[in-house]
Amino acid sequence: MRNSRRGQVDPFIVMDVVEAARKLEAAGRSIIHMEVGQPGTPAPALARKALARAMEGDALGYTVALGLPELRAGIAGLYRRWYGVDLNPDRVIVTAGSSGAFVLAFTALFDAGDRVGLGEPGYPSYRQILRALSLEPVGLPTAEANRLQPVPADLEGHDLQGLIVASPGNPSGTMLSRTHLAALMQASAARDIAFISDEIYHGLHYGDPATSALEVSDEVYVINSFSKYFSMTGWRIGWMVVPEAHIRTVERLAQNLFICPPHASQIAALAALDATEELEANRTAYAENRRLMLEGLPKAGFTRIAPPDGAFYIYADVSDLTEDSLAFAAELLQEAGVAVTPGLDFDPHRGRRTLRFSYARATADITEGLRRLQAYMATRPTKG
Amino acid sequence: MRNSRRGQVDPFIVMDVVEAARKLEAAGRSIIHMEVGQPGTPAPALARKALARAMEGDALGYTVALGLPELRAGIAGLYRRWYGVDLNPDRVIVTAGSSGAFVLAFTALFDAGDRVGLGEPGYPSYRQILRALSLEPVGLPTAEANRLQPVPADLEGHDLQGLIVASPGNPSGTMLSRTHLAALMQASAARDIAFISDEIYHGLHYGDPATSALEVSDEVYVINSFSKYFSMTGWRIGWMVVPEAHIRTVERLAQNLFICPPHASQIAALAALDATEELEANRTAYAENRRLMLEGLPKAGFTRIAPPDGAFYIYADVSDLTEDSLAFAAELLQEAGVAVTPGLDFDPHRGRRTLRFSYARATADITEGLRRLQAYMATRPTKG
Repeated sequence: MRNSRRGQVDPFIVMDVVEAARKLEAAGRSIIHMEVGQPGTPAPALARKALARAMEGDALGYTVALGLPELRAGIAGLYRRWYGVDLNPDRVIVTAGSSGAFVLAFTALFDAGDRVGLGEPGYPSYRQILRALSLEPVGLPTAEANRLQPVPADLEGHDLQGLIVASPGNPSGTMLSRTHLAALMQASAARDIAFISDEIYHGLHYGDPATSALEVSDEVYVINSFSKYFSMTGWRIGWMVVPEAHIRTVERLAQNLFICPPHASQIAALAALDATEELEANRTAYAENRRLMLEGLPKAGFTRIAPPDGAFYIYADVSDLTEDSLAFAAELLQEAGVAVTPGLDFDPHRGRRTLRFSYARATADITEGLRRLQAYMATRPTKG
Repeated sequence: MRNSRRGQVDPFIVMDVVEAARKLEAAGRSIIHMEVGQPGTPAPALARKALARAMEGDALGYTVALGLPELRAGIAGLYRRWYGVDLNPDRVIVTAGSSGAFVLAFTALFDAGDRVGLGEPGYPSYRQILRALSLEPVGLPTAEANRLQPVPADLEGHDLQGLIVASPGNPSGTMLSRTHLAALMQASAARDIAFISDEIYHGLHYGDPATSALEVSDEVYVINSFSKYFSMTGWRIGWMVVPEAHIRTVERLAQNLFICPPHASQIAALAALDATEELEANRTAYAENRRLMLEGLPKAGFTRIAPPDGAFYIYADVSDLTEDSLAFAAELLQEAGVAVTPGLDFDPHRGRRTLRFSYARATADITEGLRRLQAYMATRPTKG
């Protein structure tokens, strides 16, 4: 049976780590998970309670394609609360996670063959979703001096129709300042490059909060999700804010491509917007985890790390320890019992010399993981 | 801000009816809904109970991309129960509704510019999803003599890379016999046309059960869902069965495009597989609704209908009553208080002279809707 070319996307390299970890655990080994990009916490209690109640009285059939009106209004309210931005709720598109938002954004904005820029290192699925939609991902290597975020000069020499930027970034956790974000948006607008701002880690900051692209301009696609700050990864519920002139186009695409986002998840998400106390307690735990990591990783020999502004990752340059991050991750899993993600998923070029550590799990796990890394690295024979 | 060409898909015409019905109801009018393609029943009680229990003890984070192994095994078991087919559970891909399955199938099978055939009348989103993915939908007008299903001769003169067939069909409710399905699959294979069998209405039959394409060949993509028979539309959970050689390709696409199907919906769907008693009671209600419709619609003057084999629709040729199904649907809504779907959504050419009636709602609604249609049509002034 026939196969498409665009369907041949790259595998996630971290999946090999996940599978190897699963096998070790099945064989009785204890593994600390610093490879996964999701909270260990469930959806907020308020969210689960709201859904349990709804399941008793509501058939939970299709909703309208753009999502429950009260959820769209609630999300618009979040922009006032978080950024002081007045947002027309009609511009809020509820989606099946940020994944669903990317598919809608890319099909609404770009035609087959169009070229879309993305900073390296970055979230690996950008590249693969673009390929699956017959678009061309254009990797823009970022500089440490720019804290691994793209700058206007990186656009030069590229014929781009779009640009995706994440602040805080994954894997780096670094943020663009308002000034730098505005400069990048301005440079994109001047070149007729559609600007897509991935704000999935907003709410998870450890100093100043992140700037939303909507504070800068309305002519932007902003993508966010209930997965990270709201601790609802498996519920597949997110959102997108689009310019007013794009609402009808995105609505028609959403009707046909998705029919609607999961109704149950919409009910839960609406209640999660009010779960501030529980969610801020989660954030406090991440802040403590981050503190432990920034103190503990250097003691294990991972000295080339930049303190992240947000998210729950630390991206480490391990070029003094290895030339092969995949083998090094396998080694740390096997010898130290700690699962980490090789940088190759985020940066196909420089990722051989980087690792991503996630600190999204419980603090006790972080403490134990750091203890194991320090113990193993203290006795590690030689550079791998 | 820039816009793509492929993002400019057609609107659902039925949405105008839905919106007009909503306005009338908001103004205090009673409306009988024969326009909607979804059960009025909720997810089975067993499914809701299983989820309520899971929410108490499980974080419900991401699952693996292809779905919970026990759900994939359960779906494979359904093929034994329903069709006597032994199916390797590895071939079962759990998806975000049949919508998610179509996106995965089309990206795995076809490249930009490829041409995919579909019978007219048919499910309108096939056409729009194909367009959004830079593929070319090729409408194949079907004949009443073939019960509005495509036949091998319809492929002649078309250079196609794919063919989508639904049996039972929407809006027709007609089925392909095993012989006719096999002939169509053979004709497709001989022309290197990838065959996609949409089996979303399987389980809802009123005589012999439908034949699955998997009874005929393994070299096929079969798409199904928990939305219709299992009464779980809003949960956005479905599945796809692919040839063994395609599993890895689809897995990589699913990881990147969706991460995973909604975890909560997977838990509910797994339990729904065991809810046979409740689901068969739903089917008994549809059978009674169908009997009432086949008896009552002709009395209202809708005489050109073919008894459907399955699903919960009746597609009526109303060419003796109107040349403008959109205006006629608006008239029936306004004057009779019954919402129906104009045929234009399903057949851009001949749909001006057809209507789709859904009998998915409660039997009392069907009885009242038929009474209203009969009363109005008895006094209807002239041909519109």
